[in-house]
Amino acid sequence: MIKVAVNGFGTIGKRVAEAVKMQDDMKLIGVTKTRPDFEAKIAAKNFELYSAIPENLKLFENAGIEVKGSIEDLLQKADVVVDCSPDKVGVQNKNKYYTKIYIKAIFQGGEKKDVAEISFNALANYDAAKGKKFVRVVSCNTTGLCRLLFILKENFKIGRVRATMLRRVVDPKEDTKGIVNGIMPDPVKAPSHHALDVKAVIPDLDIVTTAFKFPTTLMHVHSLCISLKENVTPKDVVNVLEKEPRIFLISSEDGFTSTNKIVEFAREVRKRYDIFENVVWADSIGVDGNELFITQAIHQEAIVVPENIDAIRAAMNIAEKAESIEKTNKSLKIGELSRFL
Amino acid sequence: MIKVAVNGFGTIGKRVAEAVKMQDDMKLIGVTKTRPDFEAKIAAKNFELYSAIPENLKLFENAGIEVKGSIEDLLQKADVVVDCSPDKVGVQNKNKYYTKIYIKAIFQGGEKKDVAEISFNALANYDAAKGKKFVRVVSCNTTGLCRLLFILKENFKIGRVRATMLRRVVDPKEDTKGIVNGIMPDPVKAPSHHALDVKAVIPDLDIVTTAFKFPTTLMHVHSLCISLKENVTPKDVVNVLEKEPRIFLISSEDGFTSTNKIVEFAREVRKRYDIFENVVWADSIGVDGNELFITQAIHQEAIVVPENIDAIRAAMNIAEKAESIEKTNKSLKIGELSRFL
Repeated sequence: MIKVAVNGFGTIGKRVAEAVKMQDDMKLIGVTKTRPDFEAKIAAKNFELYSAIPENLKLFENAGIEVKGSIEDLLQKADVVVDCSPDKVGVQNKNKYYTKIYIKAIFQGGEKKDVAEISFNALANYDAAKGKKFVRVVSCNTTGLCRLLFILKENFKIGRVRATMLRRVVDPKEDTKGIVNGIMPDPVKAPSHHALDVKAVIPDLDIVTTAFKFPTTLMHVHSLCISLKENVTPKDVVNVLEKEPRIFLISSEDGFTSTNKIVEFAREVRKRYDIFENVVWADSIGVDGNELFITQAIHQEAIVVPENIDAIRAAMNIAEKAESIEKTNKSLKIGELSRFL
Repeated sequence: MIKVAVNGFGTIGKRVAEAVKMQDDMKLIGVTKTRPDFEAKIAAKNFELYSAIPENLKLFENAGIEVKGSIEDLLQKADVVVDCSPDKVGVQNKNKYYTKIYIKAIFQGGEKKDVAEISFNALANYDAAKGKKFVRVVSCNTTGLCRLLFILKENFKIGRVRATMLRRVVDPKEDTKGIVNGIMPDPVKAPSHHALDVKAVIPDLDIVTTAFKFPTTLMHVHSLCISLKENVTPKDVVNVLEKEPRIFLISSEDGFTSTNKIVEFAREVRKRYDIFENVVWADSIGVDGNELFITQAIHQEAIVVPENIDAIRAAMNIAEKAESIEKTNKSLKIGELSRFL
């Protein structure tokens, strides 16, 4: 049993911690929080809690929250740590802790590419991450792009990809920042970092991305325009996508007219409405000229969770790609959403 | 002096009425409202007001608002009517009134293409509208696309255009509909009507558009990707665009990081923050591969106002293209925004 630590019990960390607990080949030995807030209280009730900042141990005690020790104590016991710290804190943890001891580390997409030996997406490059000490799971948007584009690239002769990234401005829990009314190009000049990140995972893909932030918290949406180098019909694409469990095909005819409706559906069938799958509008799939159009929605809080689980197996080299993905899918019930329709 | 009636003193109508008053070759003889609300009270204080629905005359009298008569009385005195009714009401007015008397009519983009003999954009096809009885000014988004793409097409060898339309969900005054949090593909399947509407104005353009609605009221944003058939640098494009008064070039270095900031600027210098120009981020203009990228913002409430004025002159055949556009620009101070930077 692989012993897993989760450093940072935030938006991604709490979901990864729960997902680790559902695996039969790994064991969650503890999670960390920097401060004794309500999320720390929830963490302490469900997991072994450690202080992410050694000097803050006292704060937890003062708040009446039981902590087992500090991050350093936790790391000593772990085979692998999933670093779910805020952007750019992961690299600090790497330099301070992970390089100093015998441990593997999985980073998130908020870190720069060079934090790890490899930028990871389970479908696209699982094998390349096998046995690596440091693996970086790419961000939510990049994960969504990589999954879809890898499948398309494997099945069809595609050329240039143009993706317009329509981004939720902040996550639902944020209450101190975000656009209330307006549209923000971010960045103003293309390409956005997403294209570069996709190329880190799928190097031979010709892709350009533009990105904009909007006053919404629910999901990102991607509008894709992909050059085709052979005749492909929308039905061909649907046939390929519906075979992949990490793609969830929906239709506006079923009432899925917006991200609001997707979330309303997910609230019925998943804790926290976590959607681990790419949500692709089947009726958006169309061919215009020699270009394929696809629109997909991405649940930014959840989509990278299965990739983190697979990244653990790849880094620890305890499973082949197909085996890992199947275990992860089964444990998280990935691919079962269409049963409710 | 051309006698102009404005049927429908709403979002577009009140702006067109004001703009007509600023011209030296036309005279506003009256505006209409369907109901005696606060906008009718403002209309009555500034213009000759008529009841858009003959049977509603009594309602205005009961509300103490002076009306000069009904729409039928107004149309008898006018050479041309600018129909600014809600979507699909214009065609009803056409069949009920405008086809029955000697009058020309300008419709808005909310009507179907076949309401008029021609879909109009001043820069792109002024001459084709000369002397026509029925002219349709295309919608705000299409106007924004036509202006920019016509200029690019005139100056560079361009190929296919892909535009992602990021739409404000409703206008600021709407209080009973609209998305509060979420993203709505509209339509789910490309192309959106914008591509078809652009082709109605510029028939030989290869264009595809996708469209999404967002919880914002301020402005639309267009993310454009245009294939190039010759070598073009971003500087070449800037040089061409900065010569056109109906294009306002901005830079994120000046603090224009979002539509919020554009509106904040316009509030300082224009009544109601009306922006008649396409607002193009100069620093968004880039070339990636053989594709040109441009991002522009469109003030949906105001951008069609100058086109309506030019459409009146074209339909009445009282001015050549350049003369009309120059008169309109000068009267509305179009092209002068950069003086404030």
